[in-house]
Amino acid sequence: MLRVDLTTQDVSEDAIEKEIIAQFLGGRGLGAKILYEELTPGTNPLGPQNKLLFLTSPLLGTEAPSCVKYCVVTKSPLSGTILMSLAGGFFGCELRRAGYDVLIIEGKSERPVYLLLDKGEVQIGKAEYLWGMPTDETQHYLKERLGEGVRIACVGPTAERLVPFTSIISDKRAVGRGGAGAVMASKNLKAIVVRGKKEVGVADSKGLHKTVSAIRKKYRESDRIKRFGKYCTPRVLDFVNERGIFPTRNYQSGVFEGANRINAEAHQKLVVRKLTCYKCPVVCSNLAVVREGPYRGAVTEGPEYQTLWSFGGQCGNDCLEAIIAADEICDKFGVDTISAGNIIGFAMECYERGIITRGDTGGIDLRFGNHQAMIQMLRNIAVGEGLGEVLAKGVRRAAEIIGKDAERYAMQVKGLEMAGYDPRGAKGMGISFATSPRGGCHERGLVTRETFGSLPPIDRFSLEGKGKVVMEVQDEMTVLDSLGICVFPLHNGGMDIFDVADLFSSATGIKLDSDQVMKAGERIWNVERMFNLREGFGRKDDTLPERFLKEPMPEGPSKGHVVELNQLLADYYSERGWDKEGKPVPGKLEELGLQGLFGRSFAYSKNLVRQGGRK
Amino acid sequence: MLRVDLTTQDVSEDAIEKEIIAQFLGGRGLGAKILYEELTPGTNPLGPQNKLLFLTSPLLGTEAPSCVKYCVVTKSPLSGTILMSLAGGFFGCELRRAGYDVLIIEGKSERPVYLLLDKGEVQIGKAEYLWGMPTDETQHYLKERLGEGVRIACVGPTAERLVPFTSIISDKRAVGRGGAGAVMASKNLKAIVVRGKKEVGVADSKGLHKTVSAIRKKYRESDRIKRFGKYCTPRVLDFVNERGIFPTRNYQSGVFEGANRINAEAHQKLVVRKLTCYKCPVVCSNLAVVREGPYRGAVTEGPEYQTLWSFGGQCGNDCLEAIIAADEICDKFGVDTISAGNIIGFAMECYERGIITRGDTGGIDLRFGNHQAMIQMLRNIAVGEGLGEVLAKGVRRAAEIIGKDAERYAMQVKGLEMAGYDPRGAKGMGISFATSPRGGCHERGLVTRETFGSLPPIDRFSLEGKGKVVMEVQDEMTVLDSLGICVFPLHNGGMDIFDVADLFSSATGIKLDSDQVMKAGERIWNVERMFNLREGFGRKDDTLPERFLKEPMPEGPSKGHVVELNQLLADYYSERGWDKEGKPVPGKLEELGLQGLFGRSFAYSKNLVRQGGRK
Repeated sequence: MLRVDLTTQDVSEDAIEKEIIAQFLGGRGLGAKILYEELTPGTNPLGPQNKLLFLTSPLLGTEAPSCVKYCVVTKSPLSGTILMSLAGGFFGCELRRAGYDVLIIEGKSERPVYLLLDKGEVQIGKAEYLWGMPTDETQHYLKERLGEGVRIACVGPTAERLVPFTSIISDKRAVGRGGAGAVMASKNLKAIVVRGKKEVGVADSKGLHKTVSAIRKKYRESDRIKRFGKYCTPRVLDFVNERGIFPTRNYQSGVFEGANRINAEAHQKLVVRKLTCYKCPVVCSNLAVVREGPYRGAVTEGPEYQTLWSFGGQCGNDCLEAIIAADEICDKFGVDTISAGNIIGFAMECYERGIITRGDTGGIDLRFGNHQAMIQMLRNIAVGEGLGEVLAKGVRRAAEIIGKDAERYAMQVKGLEMAGYDPRGAKGMGISFATSPRGGCHERGLVTRETFGSLPPIDRFSLEGKGKVVMEVQDEMTVLDSLGICVFPLHNGGMDIFDVADLFSSATGIKLDSDQVMKAGERIWNVERMFNLREGFGRKDDTLPERFLKEPMPEGPSKGHVVELNQLLADYYSERGWDKEGKPVPGKLEELGLQGLFGRSFAYSKNLVRQGGRK
Repeated sequence: MLRVDLTTQDVSEDAIEKEIIAQFLGGRGLGAKILYEELTPGTNPLGPQNKLLFLTSPLLGTEAPSCVKYCVVTKSPLSGTILMSLAGGFFGCELRRAGYDVLIIEGKSERPVYLLLDKGEVQIGKAEYLWGMPTDETQHYLKERLGEGVRIACVGPTAERLVPFTSIISDKRAVGRGGAGAVMASKNLKAIVVRGKKEVGVADSKGLHKTVSAIRKKYRESDRIKRFGKYCTPRVLDFVNERGIFPTRNYQSGVFEGANRINAEAHQKLVVRKLTCYKCPVVCSNLAVVREGPYRGAVTEGPEYQTLWSFGGQCGNDCLEAIIAADEICDKFGVDTISAGNIIGFAMECYERGIITRGDTGGIDLRFGNHQAMIQMLRNIAVGEGLGEVLAKGVRRAAEIIGKDAERYAMQVKGLEMAGYDPRGAKGMGISFATSPRGGCHERGLVTRETFGSLPPIDRFSLEGKGKVVMEVQDEMTVLDSLGICVFPLHNGGMDIFDVADLFSSATGIKLDSDQVMKAGERIWNVERMFNLREGFGRKDDTLPERFLKEPMPEGPSKGHVVELNQLLADYYSERGWDKEGKPVPGKLEELGLQGLFGRSFAYSKNLVRQGGRK
């Protein structure tokens, strides 16, 4: 564990005890624990008191396949909740191979800096010259100066403006949701550069190898994994649209008539090469290039399903090339594609309803489907011009500023713009969106059995038993996130929770079975909940935009449905062992070993760490 | 010398005899000789019969400072003349360190490929996946695949459309003028990748070191060199404007009222770091970043003076940030900034005169000074949308297509768009523009004594003796180009022609004094002339746009002047030893050892080369 105070430029190292790993597994879990302990309630997310944690896991950099994700934990400037956001690629494994499981950034540098972790050395370097640069140029000029063979996580120019839905980018991979980019920029930290050449040790390499071989065999034999490897996330677009839950024109409908022009099949025509994360055999990433028309020359690694949705259905746009151009702009400027597309769709609905006018947009004809207008508004958000400056505050705040009923059309939960599933046709997803610790997030409990028809099937409209299903999914995802394991192999039958428990046990030497691992997931989920409760969030905030509660879906296979949120939440709280206000009952905390959680220092004592030397 | 036939994929090596080096020095000289010999008159520049030569010099990769430029020689698709264009940076030295002085690309690959020269190995690799990518992404993904530590010269998406003013880009350095990018793309060659790790040998390393030490001392002691190192080419903008020869609004004036908002001083405010070419102590390159406003996030290495002019004065634009954004687009898409800005200024004049309308521009209000319109039109040229498709043919052809008197406003010579000096206030420059082998180029004979007031001063309005001055400048530049020596140290008193002769002699072991070196420059100039004469160019083509001949400069310090071209040319031809049609008289060819030039094989015999092995 490395701690860097940017105010004082102090650098120290600590060790993490095995007991903590047994309880919190890794990245997301450790992050929740540390942030809960170290952050004073009410801390300004963009102030120097907020902390920015980069975390890996015991599996990163080992031979375990698809274990590549690092996570960033901080307090979100968009929602004010705890924020955990992940990215794949290479940075996480490089960070771990540089010798660190946890990197805590504190304070605020007086002037722009970058942090260099290079063969055991920690340096804070001047980054004035990088300030203002897009993420690709930032990485280019850092490599040009520091030599090649490094991995870099950095922020773009939009984060420097403290826009609360900005990301941290490494290569073209985003720690996207919730504004970790703005937190990093608020500390005047432009980039973290890592050169990791250390071997990553494991407790039982023979045991790990055995599990890995079994997983690799499943990968090889699975048609679903192969299909996923080819198409990646865009493959679900048709499923979602066919179920009538593909949010269209700011969630006014769940069916997009232009879906077949932006689906996986259409996307494949622009894919030129496969790319992969660190040593992952699935090789799912798609490099796409636009070779014709006004967006000629746009290049992206993606877009993923959520981006196809946010700049596609959400904006009523069926021009795939424009989506790729938007994705590229988001990567370069360091902007979350989900939030940005959601917000532009919101502005389009406001425009069509006369809430904002052509005068407000600076002459941009911001109707649904006008992809030139979409791109122009995205650029304006990215650089802070005109209405873009207002929209850059996030959809909740922008709607408040715009006024005139606009808040009705702000599709967000706890300030985080919602993602691309309409919960009216997937009731479990309604619970997930309402209860995700970071706000309107799809990932924290993606009920694939409702949304994509994964096995065993469940009735997506039914309310019955959804609390339990959502809790299981949430806890399982929490385990994966804490271990940096990509969710897709699990969604596609390449790995299961038993494999995960085996991987963890071999890597750490801490024997946990699948139940114990799932219990750790529940523990972490509850710590995040407690963080949010302490910040003042509660039952009142576990809600959804009015549209889902009161406006029945107007058309398509989910026609007529709303989300019966009260009933769903009551069931969910009860499964969780939470009271009617959404607070864990004392018995639940005890069961999870979190009984000290209401006190100040829960289960964390100084003797677990040793002071490391200054560098 | 490496020869690659992309049609057959044959690769062969040849040696170059010392005698040839003594006559033709290096890059530009060898290129002229080889192209003259090997190209059938009337060859289609974009057909497989055209050849594309990359050439270095005996000084590249040695310790000689500022000797960094590689050149590309081919037949220009824009002018139909011989084309020689250079770039600094690192590619040239890397190519030489890979073991090659000359690389000849012939034929046309069936599918997109890249060429890899790596430690003596030559490979032709598939580049389908790179097709359509901008130059930065092309370099990024090639490094990602081939490993880092390589240098790459590549073309962008605009060259793939065979736009005749597209460049070849390495890092962000352009082989800019005359359309070498289109020739490269016409061969389906996306990139050349070089990994050069060989030591570059010299004949007399002690002698070389002595000359180098003397030059470095001059560099250190020269205030002009230091000033140049800081400001680079933007420094001349004020000089040029103060002399009333800064072409403004498509050469309608020579004085730009917004000059102080785009001059070196303004530029310096956006410069964040210095950059250099391969081991050059001058370190003149400026990395500039836009940090505010609508062009936030734009990054460029520059802009150089010519770009400040082409997207500044030429377009009546005083928004420096827009110029940087334009420069960035040109680098990414691989478009020559001089031609592109010249053409947009032309279109703006046509628009203001009603020759083209808002209907023609697709709604873009293309008046002078509208920088948003300028950027939009540049994008349209780069991707080939609307009027951009017409303008992408170059100003001469675009004016023919537009008709309605537009040709009067096409500021070009031999099809090459003119650069940023108005010859009405610098008469010698008038000769240079009219007689440059590649068309309306400023570099082939930049009369700095007229334009920037270099010493010893000459009367810029006088006609007297200008033929001689221009000839000397042209020959001297030809020497520098042939040796890959940057012109700026010579312009700024850091090096002189005696140093150049010494550098050449030590490096090659061929003793030439400064007169002999200058004679080689004259020899090369005459070979280029003979190439163009053979293609049908002659006295009739050595001309200038009517504006300079008939419209007196309307205002400023050069007010009232035109270019008295007939008188100037007669003087120049006479100095050159050319007849009234601009043909070298036989005595001149004999003097230069080019008496066989009218035959087919001049001074080139098979026994000078040995066949190399296939790889």
